[in-house]
Amino acid sequence: MLSDIEISNQASPQLISDIANKLGILSHELTSFGDAKAKVDPALLKRLVAKQQGKLIIVTAVTPTPHGEGKTVTTIGLTQGLAHIGKKSCACIRQPSMGPVFGVKGGAAGGGYAQVIPMQEMNLHLTGDIHAVSSAHNLAAAALDARLFHETRLSAAEFTRQSEQTALNIDPQQLLWRRVIDHNERSLRHITVGLGAINGPVHDSGFDITAASELMAILALSHDLTDMRKRIGRLVLALDTSANPITAEDLGVAGAMTAIMVEAIKPTLMQTINGQPCLIHAGPFANIAHGNSSIIADKIALKLADFVVTEAGFGSDMGFEKFCNIKVRESDKAPDAAVLVVTLKALKANSGIASDLDINKPDMDRLQAGFSNLNWHINNVAKYGVPVVVAINHFPTDSQAELDWLQHAVTKTAAFGCEISQSFAQGASGAEQLAKTVAAATEQTSNFKFLYDVNTTIISKLLTIAESGYGANNVTLTAQATQQMQRFEALGFSHLPLCIAKTPMSISHDPSIKGIPGDFELPVTELRLNAGAGFITALAGKVMTMPGLNIKPNYLNIDIDDAGHIIGLD
Amino acid sequence: MLSDIEISNQASPQLISDIANKLGILSHELTSFGDAKAKVDPALLKRLVAKQQGKLIIVTAVTPTPHGEGKTVTTIGLTQGLAHIGKKSCACIRQPSMGPVFGVKGGAAGGGYAQVIPMQEMNLHLTGDIHAVSSAHNLAAAALDARLFHETRLSAAEFTRQSEQTALNIDPQQLLWRRVIDHNERSLRHITVGLGAINGPVHDSGFDITAASELMAILALSHDLTDMRKRIGRLVLALDTSANPITAEDLGVAGAMTAIMVEAIKPTLMQTINGQPCLIHAGPFANIAHGNSSIIADKIALKLADFVVTEAGFGSDMGFEKFCNIKVRESDKAPDAAVLVVTLKALKANSGIASDLDINKPDMDRLQAGFSNLNWHINNVAKYGVPVVVAINHFPTDSQAELDWLQHAVTKTAAFGCEISQSFAQGASGAEQLAKTVAAATEQTSNFKFLYDVNTTIISKLLTIAESGYGANNVTLTAQATQQMQRFEALGFSHLPLCIAKTPMSISHDPSIKGIPGDFELPVTELRLNAGAGFITALAGKVMTMPGLNIKPNYLNIDIDDAGHIIGLD
Repeated sequence: MLSDIEISNQASPQLISDIANKLGILSHELTSFGDAKAKVDPALLKRLVAKQQGKLIIVTAVTPTPHGEGKTVTTIGLTQGLAHIGKKSCACIRQPSMGPVFGVKGGAAGGGYAQVIPMQEMNLHLTGDIHAVSSAHNLAAAALDARLFHETRLSAAEFTRQSEQTALNIDPQQLLWRRVIDHNERSLRHITVGLGAINGPVHDSGFDITAASELMAILALSHDLTDMRKRIGRLVLALDTSANPITAEDLGVAGAMTAIMVEAIKPTLMQTINGQPCLIHAGPFANIAHGNSSIIADKIALKLADFVVTEAGFGSDMGFEKFCNIKVRESDKAPDAAVLVVTLKALKANSGIASDLDINKPDMDRLQAGFSNLNWHINNVAKYGVPVVVAINHFPTDSQAELDWLQHAVTKTAAFGCEISQSFAQGASGAEQLAKTVAAATEQTSNFKFLYDVNTTIISKLLTIAESGYGANNVTLTAQATQQMQRFEALGFSHLPLCIAKTPMSISHDPSIKGIPGDFELPVTELRLNAGAGFITALAGKVMTMPGLNIKPNYLNIDIDDAGHIIGLD
Repeated sequence: MLSDIEISNQASPQLISDIANKLGILSHELTSFGDAKAKVDPALLKRLVAKQQGKLIIVTAVTPTPHGEGKTVTTIGLTQGLAHIGKKSCACIRQPSMGPVFGVKGGAAGGGYAQVIPMQEMNLHLTGDIHAVSSAHNLAAAALDARLFHETRLSAAEFTRQSEQTALNIDPQQLLWRRVIDHNERSLRHITVGLGAINGPVHDSGFDITAASELMAILALSHDLTDMRKRIGRLVLALDTSANPITAEDLGVAGAMTAIMVEAIKPTLMQTINGQPCLIHAGPFANIAHGNSSIIADKIALKLADFVVTEAGFGSDMGFEKFCNIKVRESDKAPDAAVLVVTLKALKANSGIASDLDINKPDMDRLQAGFSNLNWHINNVAKYGVPVVVAINHFPTDSQAELDWLQHAVTKTAAFGCEISQSFAQGASGAEQLAKTVAAATEQTSNFKFLYDVNTTIISKLLTIAESGYGANNVTLTAQATQQMQRFEALGFSHLPLCIAKTPMSISHDPSIKGIPGDFELPVTELRLNAGAGFITALAGKVMTMPGLNIKPNYLNIDIDDAGHIIGLD
């Protein structure tokens, strides 16, 4: 079979203006970036205010493994499959971060015959939204440090005279705003800035990957530009010497940050390999952020298509939980059905059984042992009242006996159905049966419920997520996290939902615990206030908000060929 | 008069595809980014290989002052004026850095009725090239530090076993590659990275503004994508423990960096307020970098237009000198004429005479004292054998007597002519006479010569630039600079031209010395090898490659209005 980039390059994409036209976007609502990408103006939501929304399908997965479960492949394949059975469909996915593209993972546009094309345009830059998030985020950091610099070198009176602004009295020990960059940058995790006598005051800082920026979450959760402007104004960048929050509005930088983001608020339209529309917007990771594409993109797609397929990052304990408890609270649109992606390999890897046997080879013992992980995720999704269809993403090496066993085993669970998806190798037709079953699932009576009441204390919400969300016995907090919790409650932010940052490689906080974790406590090490995005991030276990490049990074494979085409981006 | 952004918003831009069509660009050579911007494929140079080049006009200025001389206004106005007198013209300018946009300066698209529209699209993001430069630059930094991290934690044999690469033995004391960000970020000038035990080794680093990135220079100096790929491969990122250079090629990151830059190599076409074409490409500052837009953009414009007007940053000692001694050596296209922009205010500010009198008020003494600065710059340009036309950029407050005196005074210099330019207030017609005189100047026999022979020693070239270029008596080098000079010569890089980084606010290295500096030595503090771009940067005086935000930064004025339009970007 051809590589992803070869398949992408051999495809004959339609003009993106034709794709938009078929979807019902008017030409003045579209800004083309070449023939293959276009930004869509959310103003169309006003035009279509009276139109009914389509069905929303959320794609999630079992606990991920290093083998790749094919969640984006299934999202794109299902979108193609729905079109194949005559449904008007649209995918909504996140913009890939360049960190993983050059790091361990390669591209994030799906793969095989279930991908967004041209994949290199999707994986690099797209229409610049992530760059805009980085730029606006770092403008706030520059503004904060510059203000601290000028207020430190001058008396308050002299500062006011020269600047025509009132001194903010920033507490240099309470600078809450880190910096971001869209790379895997281990050595920037923890840095000292302001060295060199004239650049100070010297203080600690650090970079997160842009996918973890609060501004990225704001992009994904805003209803419109006015809402985004307000949220940016509410960003808490630091505390003053009386422990009061200093916001981006206080610093006078919120307007300029919004100006940088004016184009980013428009989702980007691309197409799948068989010409189905795909809206790409925002890129928060699901481990260290809330892990879902934007409300604006979903809203646009739901007005234009009968079936909208969107993807939540990692397993159902991660992106799906945050979809339900953070995104749905803002969007007011619960999913009509969920698709839970699994592979034979993933279940074997989740079995917790060590084995020298090639994971592609049949191994019924490991498969059966790993099934409990799938069953846990089925129940986890069902807990929210969302009908769940299991999609077995098929690999050529899969054993028919194992596939048969798995499909039969799922019939005894809470799942609505279980289908084998072959969209990687076959495209739309490979997802035909999955599409039919998912469409049927969306006809179920919806009974969505949140995991927790948002109007309780932070600790109560932490306990509910840990116990009901992950099966933990308890939550422990470091002294730092306890202090932060008390401070955020004192500042009036206890009503916010929580965004847990933890490893995605286990349902617990410990990546070595496979299957269903047993007896464990969730250790919360740090809380971060995201007053603009509207949640509090809780860091659990050894989680880092900046990845590092591994010893054999993917960038080694990437180059241009003699014709100037990009190679090695698979 | 309306503000720049109001004028821009009230203009009726033509479709950029129509502008391209009139210029002679074929539709398959154009990638539109909406209606107002489009990338131009340099492949058209192959199609037009037999076509004769147009005339190249370089716009430079007297020593700049905080009042703004209007060099971009004159560049755009002259382009409009040339069209007004029936010449096919095109402007080639640099992409504005967002650092100054949010810092002290505001936009950089020209102004009044001589600007590129829509100015907010030009000033923010454009088509993403600066973001691409930042991203590719910082990928190299991440790759270098990750390699150092993995080689430090493992034995050479174990590193090779796990990575399938040979250890590079990076000297942690000789990491030459800094990081970049497109903001004014004082506190990132000098930082310590790798803190926190698991992120190390701890070492010094720092950020320059992206305009000073060697990759930005490569973008501006490359002939085509293949040439860019080779130059990126030659970037020296560090030295090994035997003091041998470690390049981006050695690190295996040059291909991925180029992949990030594949679209950036295409210049962006926009239009002036009266529909003349303007190519915008690359954005090196002229104080801390080589200060000129790209060779590729110039080449494209010279094939398509009869007159190409480009701008070199700051005074003729800065961008113009580098245009001649760095860019022309690569492009092999000397300017056919130069325009030297001056204002009455600039000469008064350059007089060195302190005065309480409003600089907009007539003050013949200061004007006459400041004239020597203009005369110096006229002679400086003439030294290169390029005919020079003085353009007096007119302000409404200008005294007619002073204008008359100045025009008359210029007749006694080496200048070819002197015209008053009123394009800010009047657009094309305000530059009619300037256009006629400049067109006549390009008919002069060209007699271009470089300031120095590139095949001499570094110190000899430094002396020539300091003495013949600035009028210094001598050059001093710090011990660090001396060591670096010796190292670069030992590595075989003595044949490269020099790029002096110094203040633009004086012909000397000392911004307090106005007019024509007298008795001074040029103090060189540091040399930086730019093996990929093809020059050696020499830092002279107290120059910093990262600006800081001032106490009353421009971002305070920027916001969106109720309709979502950007305001305050003037």
